[in-house]
Amino acid sequence: MAVQAQEPAQDRSRRDEERQAREQVAAVLAAVRADGRNALTAPEGKLVADAYGIATPGEGLAADVDAAVALAARFDGPVVLKIVSPDILHKSEAGGVVVGVTGATQVRAAFHRIVASVRAHAPAARIDGVQVQQMLPAGQEVIVGAVTDPTFGKVVAFGLGGVLVEVLRDVTFRLAPVDTDEAASMLDSIKAAQVLRGVRGAPPVDRWALVEQIRRVSRLVTDFPEIAEVDLNPVIATPEGALAADIRIILAEGAPVERPRFSREEILTAMNRLMRPRSVAVIGASNEAGKIGNSVMRNLVDGGFAGDIHPVNPKADDIAGRKAYASVLDVPGEVDVAVFAIPARFVAAALREAGRKGIPTAVLIPSGFAETGEQALQDEVVAVAREYGIRLLGPNIYGYYSTWQDLCATFCTPYDVKGPVALSSQSGGIGMAILGFARTTRTGVSAIVGLGNKSDVDEDDLLTYFGEDEHTSCIAMHLEDLKDGRAFVAAARATVPKKPVVVLKAGRTSAGARAAGSHTGALAGDDKVYDDILRQAGVIRAPGLKDMLEYARALPVLPTPKGDNVVIITGAGGSGVLLSDACVDNGLTLMEIPPDLDAAFMRYIPPFGAAGNPIDITGGEPPATYEATIRLGLEDPRVHALVLGYWHTIVTPPMVFAELTARVVAEAKAKGIEKPVVASLAGDTEVEQAAAYLFEHGVVAYPYSTEEPVAALGAKYRWARAAGLLGSPGRNR
Amino acid sequence: MAVQAQEPAQDRSRRDEERQAREQVAAVLAAVRADGRNALTAPEGKLVADAYGIATPGEGLAADVDAAVALAARFDGPVVLKIVSPDILHKSEAGGVVVGVTGATQVRAAFHRIVASVRAHAPAARIDGVQVQQMLPAGQEVIVGAVTDPTFGKVVAFGLGGVLVEVLRDVTFRLAPVDTDEAASMLDSIKAAQVLRGVRGAPPVDRWALVEQIRRVSRLVTDFPEIAEVDLNPVIATPEGALAADIRIILAEGAPVERPRFSREEILTAMNRLMRPRSVAVIGASNEAGKIGNSVMRNLVDGGFAGDIHPVNPKADDIAGRKAYASVLDVPGEVDVAVFAIPARFVAAALREAGRKGIPTAVLIPSGFAETGEQALQDEVVAVAREYGIRLLGPNIYGYYSTWQDLCATFCTPYDVKGPVALSSQSGGIGMAILGFARTTRTGVSAIVGLGNKSDVDEDDLLTYFGEDEHTSCIAMHLEDLKDGRAFVAAARATVPKKPVVVLKAGRTSAGARAAGSHTGALAGDDKVYDDILRQAGVIRAPGLKDMLEYARALPVLPTPKGDNVVIITGAGGSGVLLSDACVDNGLTLMEIPPDLDAAFMRYIPPFGAAGNPIDITGGEPPATYEATIRLGLEDPRVHALVLGYWHTIVTPPMVFAELTARVVAEAKAKGIEKPVVASLAGDTEVEQAAAYLFEHGVVAYPYSTEEPVAALGAKYRWARAAGLLGSPGRNR
Repeated sequence: MAVQAQEPAQDRSRRDEERQAREQVAAVLAAVRADGRNALTAPEGKLVADAYGIATPGEGLAADVDAAVALAARFDGPVVLKIVSPDILHKSEAGGVVVGVTGATQVRAAFHRIVASVRAHAPAARIDGVQVQQMLPAGQEVIVGAVTDPTFGKVVAFGLGGVLVEVLRDVTFRLAPVDTDEAASMLDSIKAAQVLRGVRGAPPVDRWALVEQIRRVSRLVTDFPEIAEVDLNPVIATPEGALAADIRIILAEGAPVERPRFSREEILTAMNRLMRPRSVAVIGASNEAGKIGNSVMRNLVDGGFAGDIHPVNPKADDIAGRKAYASVLDVPGEVDVAVFAIPARFVAAALREAGRKGIPTAVLIPSGFAETGEQALQDEVVAVAREYGIRLLGPNIYGYYSTWQDLCATFCTPYDVKGPVALSSQSGGIGMAILGFARTTRTGVSAIVGLGNKSDVDEDDLLTYFGEDEHTSCIAMHLEDLKDGRAFVAAARATVPKKPVVVLKAGRTSAGARAAGSHTGALAGDDKVYDDILRQAGVIRAPGLKDMLEYARALPVLPTPKGDNVVIITGAGGSGVLLSDACVDNGLTLMEIPPDLDAAFMRYIPPFGAAGNPIDITGGEPPATYEATIRLGLEDPRVHALVLGYWHTIVTPPMVFAELTARVVAEAKAKGIEKPVVASLAGDTEVEQAAAYLFEHGVVAYPYSTEEPVAALGAKYRWARAAGLLGSPGRNR
Repeated sequence: MAVQAQEPAQDRSRRDEERQAREQVAAVLAAVRADGRNALTAPEGKLVADAYGIATPGEGLAADVDAAVALAARFDGPVVLKIVSPDILHKSEAGGVVVGVTGATQVRAAFHRIVASVRAHAPAARIDGVQVQQMLPAGQEVIVGAVTDPTFGKVVAFGLGGVLVEVLRDVTFRLAPVDTDEAASMLDSIKAAQVLRGVRGAPPVDRWALVEQIRRVSRLVTDFPEIAEVDLNPVIATPEGALAADIRIILAEGAPVERPRFSREEILTAMNRLMRPRSVAVIGASNEAGKIGNSVMRNLVDGGFAGDIHPVNPKADDIAGRKAYASVLDVPGEVDVAVFAIPARFVAAALREAGRKGIPTAVLIPSGFAETGEQALQDEVVAVAREYGIRLLGPNIYGYYSTWQDLCATFCTPYDVKGPVALSSQSGGIGMAILGFARTTRTGVSAIVGLGNKSDVDEDDLLTYFGEDEHTSCIAMHLEDLKDGRAFVAAARATVPKKPVVVLKAGRTSAGARAAGSHTGALAGDDKVYDDILRQAGVIRAPGLKDMLEYARALPVLPTPKGDNVVIITGAGGSGVLLSDACVDNGLTLMEIPPDLDAAFMRYIPPFGAAGNPIDITGGEPPATYEATIRLGLEDPRVHALVLGYWHTIVTPPMVFAELTARVVAEAKAKGIEKPVVASLAGDTEVEQAAAYLFEHGVVAYPYSTEEPVAALGAKYRWARAAGLLGSPGRNR
């Protein structure tokens, strides 16, 4: 009882120290602002560093020789002694500086020599004492910094220092604040990480000292949002520590704009009304073919939505066989969603009626808002929505599908393969590509959502909803920006442990130049920040549109691997080599096959075949050889994933291979064995049908490609690692 | 006349100098061998460097003080003076070393001080004089070296020195010898190239001094094949020069194995007989279904080959309706090709008969040779072929197609879309993937050739033939190794100016560790050497199998661009962003649209559309907008290539877009305007048909992908640059 009721003394003391540190920094920053500056001087930077425990070279003023000895003893290595006098301008000329002083005897001698020299040089000078400064050791230069990213807010950076790394831009970013684990991960995330571990006989640097520098800088900018940029450049890292030789701090010019946030419960409530409505009103429903309001009505009706569909149009009595209402206010009963298919200029007024009706969600299909420069019109609509507590999807979208509800509130054709993937896109064109691809590959889809201008509902809301949606086991998103990077990361972190999140971030290469007052700022190109922070959030980034679509199709098909050991079984040696290349490219681990397993494989393959990994069963083998080796790979518990290379022969035709593989995989599943299996099919056009059959039977298979199946497996592994389902990441890049 | 008849004095003198240099080095190497060593000492390395003009710090022995002054005056910057005496082991202890000496006065003083100190320290010591050495300046450390690559022979390397670059392995390779242009290109090919140009106010290094170091090292290893490795590490590069601080030279243990080479005429003669035969014999032809000798006969007959087909089988009178012969010696008339479909162990004897019959080329389908460990059997077959002057294709192959001859000498099904692409593969599995892909995409093919074990005919022979073949306008090759890298590069260099060569090099990542006696050797991972040298040869390297196939399909369809200006015209803003990303990824230049052209585009697009580049015509536009903007892009001579982003709408359905685009492109062609046009189609499944239609009409189009069309355009640009049809490369990587 006593322990719980009373705060331990050490906690209280730490809290006091932290409060004191904040007060010290606040005082420095207030003085800088009062002085009309936004950049701190070096002594001001030193005060801030000291308050936050950011290690800089030690220094102090010694009034007498014993104080000098005591100060020098506090610092590692040699010190510099300098006279402190308001009357001495040129210290060296006055004999007032001695460098490289080590040990008490030398400190005493140097102190006396300095004072004697200065007295001789300027007898009248007042002497305040002698400054004792720690000399910077030789070591590895690194940069630790923080910037305020327009998307993600406070972001901490780490990289190697020096000209070369500025040229190669070998730097990594994380959301601030970071804990020690995240800070430590930054040391391994740069390309030249090996330098810190010691190369060619050099000892490793003190990693924990660097971790502390990163962590403390991240805490500083988190505590003081008004600090725009911090640069410790260089930090000298040695086996004994890490000292910031120079600290640069710049304050922000204005206050950041906050985006409104909703609680998780509010989001789930609204998104459930949107995605699983019982009643939908279509504002601007029409009987006139070619009109969006006609397409949306027809798609809702034809798509088979089981809830109520209420057309709203003052000029019609009946639309698509349903009674039409002049105003949404006339619609009977509760309405969950109002779909808008009217010109932009009429939206605000109609939305107000929806608000008065108490409709909680609105889908704004029309364009003609911010994307055409009509920002004011969009702001007006958003203001109405806020007033009535309506969540907005869009504007400027194709609409949305919620397949398990048979809900097609779009002007495209209904999608009909219910399944586990939720897809979203910021762009209508990409949305149409999603639709076409999904249809042609028969990808099972739980939802396709257009986000358009993202005036309100955005990726965070979708992640929160789809993370809970029992129909969804994979989420794939095309995006060009994030309105609130921190909210996205929070939503992604909550979702990733449950299901994979794939992101296609467009505009990767448009970063261009950015004005920045610090080195860190100059290094913080938009895309590098996105890349590191999306990875930090556990998101799988797709390099291109086709990749995103293929990952979305493949990830739900593949079981989650339970370990790192990948085995390639191939009928074509040539495919084996390319599949190995692809495994290395995707950071996969080719299992070192133990002798007993090697011998077990060899029992099934011809003497001139090759065990090892890839296991080359050779080209002319009958179905039995494929079957036996695949079964062995599935049943041996040391193997965690299989990559198959099929070669079309008359001995084992494509569909024979496909059927036997599907059967062996199903048999293993019946025994409780589920491992990811991917296949590359080399052969005549019949391999296309075989690949489609395999995909439908739980094996991710591609014809004419060694890269695609392995890329899908690689994406699954990246997710499994991010979700904490495997050990620590083998590779960071 | 006189000028031509008499060698100019300066040429003769240079020749004499070169001969002298070679003699000097030969003498050093002979002495090293005589001493039973294979590594040169530092003084021996210095002798070699001096002979080849490889700049090292200047040094000389001064017998008296005036000589010391004269020597010091010859070198840039300060010098070191060191006593030279056989009796003084520890020079510094004897006061025999003075560093940092500048100017005549200091040199005189130092000389006297050294002699006096040594006399005082060891009165009896013999003094040979004082060594005067140039001090190494501070500068950028780089590494220049040469290694003997198993594939490419002598290869020269350049990279930045220091721990960091060893970690990042930022190094580039070229075939030795290099001329000054090639050496200069190496300085731009490293990732950190900017460092040499001077960053953050540092002056640029002396590029020509570095170029000379590279060039001279490359000449040294070319003149002396017995030199296995050379390391100048580090070379100190400054604005004034480049000095090798250390030189390491290692001799080879054994003599390299030479592969027999054929003249260009010999190759073309043999390949013409192989690829355009009038008469083919099938050794092991069979009436028994399921046998390879049956498939080959049927395919030759069914494929429609117009020449003579002679089955050879002692046990049959008639095969596939043709008279069968007991031996190839019984076949009447001249035979161009003998296709072998008999077990491996019978091949040598049958090949001897083919040799006696005077058949110049043999296609060895059977496996069971080197690939299964039967190297002796393969060697025997190769020896028979050499004896009779027969060129061998294979063994261990699926055969080959020569489509314009309707010649299908394989055990696969005949390929029937005649066209401009020649494809080859080292692996049978990859060959089958080529066949299936080509058939399903209706890729026009001139030949598909299996190379298998490459006991004789290899990629060089194919390049030489297809380079001349009027039916072939693009060559794509899958390979796992090159038997003779230099012959391949020579063939590629002869071919690339005429037609693009695409290579998929498998085994990229299998390099692994390699024992090496030098830093350069340790940096020369197989794949990096392949990558640089294939690029040097002008080859387009495909990153994966699917990429190779798509490049092979697309390159012949695209006209060659005449300049760098790429313009994106898109109906979907989202596609525009992704297409821009892809352009940057592929090293393409997005044109900066001049104001008049910008205004011209704006006349066709809605006011809220965006000119600039991408030109966003917005989604709801009718066919006329696509048509007008595409026509404008084609007809403006400042635009060199178009990237189209189509968005499926009911206003402009997919086939409407495809037909209008094909028509506008055809109209431009009729006016003599040919520019590469690629398209990304985002939409429902109808875009697949539209993309296929566009491909058939000269526009490289892909559904659901923004990456693939731009990658194809990027490959075309890379080829155009390598072929010298555009200006100098904008980017090296």
